[in-house]
Parts: sequence; structure tokens; C-alpha cells
Amino acid sequence: MQEYFDKAIELAEDGVKNLEGGPFGAVVVKDNKIIGYGNNKVLLEKDPTAHAEIIAIRDACKRINTHDLTGCVIYSTSEPCPMCLSAIIWANIKKVYFVTDRKEVAQIGFRDDYIYNYLEKKEKDIIEIKQIENKKCQELLKSYNNKLY
Amino acid sequence: MQEYFDKAIELAEDGVKNLEGGPFGAVVVKDNKIIGYGNNKVLLEKDPTAHAEIIAIRDACKRINTHDLTGCVIYSTSEPCPMCLSAIIWANIKKVYFVTDRKEVAQIGFRDDYIYNYLEKKEKDIIEIKQIENKKCQELLKSYNNKLY
Repeated sequence: MQEYFDKAIELAEDGVKNLEGGPFGAVVVKDNKIIGYGNNKVLLEKDPTAHAEIIAIRDACKRINTHDLTGCVIYSTSEPCPMCLSAIIWANIKKVYFVTDRKEVAQIGFRDDYIYNYLEKKEKDIIEIKQIENKKCQELLKSYNNKLY
Repeated sequence: MQEYFDKAIELAEDGVKNLEGGPFGAVVVKDNKIIGYGNNKVLLEKDPTAHAEIIAIRDACKRINTHDLTGCVIYSTSEPCPMCLSAIIWANIKKVYFVTDRKEVAQIGFRDDYIYNYLEKKEKDIIEIKQIENKKCQELLKSYNNKLY
């Protein structure tokens, strides 16, 4: 495990050096081999989704040519935010190891407690979200279903 | 609003035609103009994070050259999953409109209830997540903080 965290930390340090984004790194491991590398690049790539874990997942998928990372483990320098945690679940990764937790990360300005609170329904007014009627969308789901089965 | 959903539906239909991923489309709108386009490309791009909303956000950021979509609105054919909802919040988008909800989408096989349940702490064992000690990560956060201030 040490070598995986060493690599994740090295990636984060590189990102800090170049102010690419927050001080976060992650690697995806399969069969004891690192297959995905990521560090936060939100500022460098001007992409709010460019968190270390998301980049590491996308990198791993590209390398092994699948969207399914079943059997992989992700090592992240910090606790994944809800976006990354959901991405990890979508990718079928079942094991997550991290070092600094959300409170430590919040202390240097990277807060995600309000996102957790929103998803846990403790806070409501962070965003306005509304369901709109449109029959075409129901038809769309049906047409997809018919195409498949 | 109709024209934005028309476009989102058109994007989703294109994706369905080519089996690029699920039947989902989204657009990001700023000052009454569409600046970001996305449809689900999980299968085509072999990327589990390539949901319509994520792609639309990344596209919008690229076009207006910023990671901050304050003032933008997102229109999605379906209710955003927790990953996309978190990405929307990270992007500083405050208004979200969608048509088909998570239950309708689950009926054609796209379930995200277990992710919501995990984040709402109703389910625990979907993934194994563990905090590991490593002093280098605390130092990393400090060094980032020192570099900035």
C-alpha cells in the first residue's frame, strides 16, 4: 500500500508545484499494479470535474479499454468528495483508501461539507432543482429500451 | 426553456442511435444561450464518468474558458445522478431542470438509488472505505497552504 500512496503523493506534489489545482493525488490499482494516475487539475484544465480520483479513473479506463473497473482499488491522498465517491461507485471500484479526511481538507479551504449535507438532505437551498414535464423524454427512455430488448 | 430541452433530447437521441451510452442529454445555458452540450458516452468513450451533465459542464467550461459556471443553468433530460449533481454544485451552477426522474430511469435499468442511499447513509456496504495514516499527506496540505498564503 505504501508505494501506491507514495505515487499518489508524488502526483499531488507535482500538481502543487505547478498550481494545477488542489493538493490531491490518486492512483487506481489492479492486480497490484498502478493502472491509473491522477492529480487535481481544476485550475490547469479549467474543469470543475478534474479531481484527482476522476482523472485516475478515466486514465485507468483508457489504459485497460473498459468503463468497468471491477476488482480495482483506488488510493487517494484525501477523502473523496461526493462527486468522486459516486464516480468510484459507477466505475465498480469497491475499495477506497485515503489519508487526510474532509475536515482536514476543509481547513485549507477545500470544503465539500455543503455538498454532503445537500445529498444527506440536511441542507436544501444550495441549488434549485425542478422537474419539468415533457413527454418526449418518456418516449426517449422507451425507444432506448425497445432498441436494446 | 422548450428549446433547451429540445436540444438536450436531440443530443440524447443521437446517443441512442449510435449506442454511445444511456438515453440522456444535457445542455448548459448562460444568458439565454446554450454554451455546453452533452450526451451520455459511457460506452462509446469507455468512461464511467461520461454522463451527459458532466460532458455538458466540461464543454461549457472549455468554451468560455473557466472552471466557474456561476450564473449558468443546466437542463437535463433526466434527473442528475449524485455524481452529476455534485459536479453541478462544484461548477457553481445553481439551477437545474430535468424531466424524467430517477424512478423512471431505474425502470429501464439505470439505477442510482444505491448511490443515493450510500450518500444518505441508508446503506453502508456498497464500498469499503478506509482512512490510512500517512504524515506526508498532512505535510502536503500544509505546503499547499504555505505556497498560497
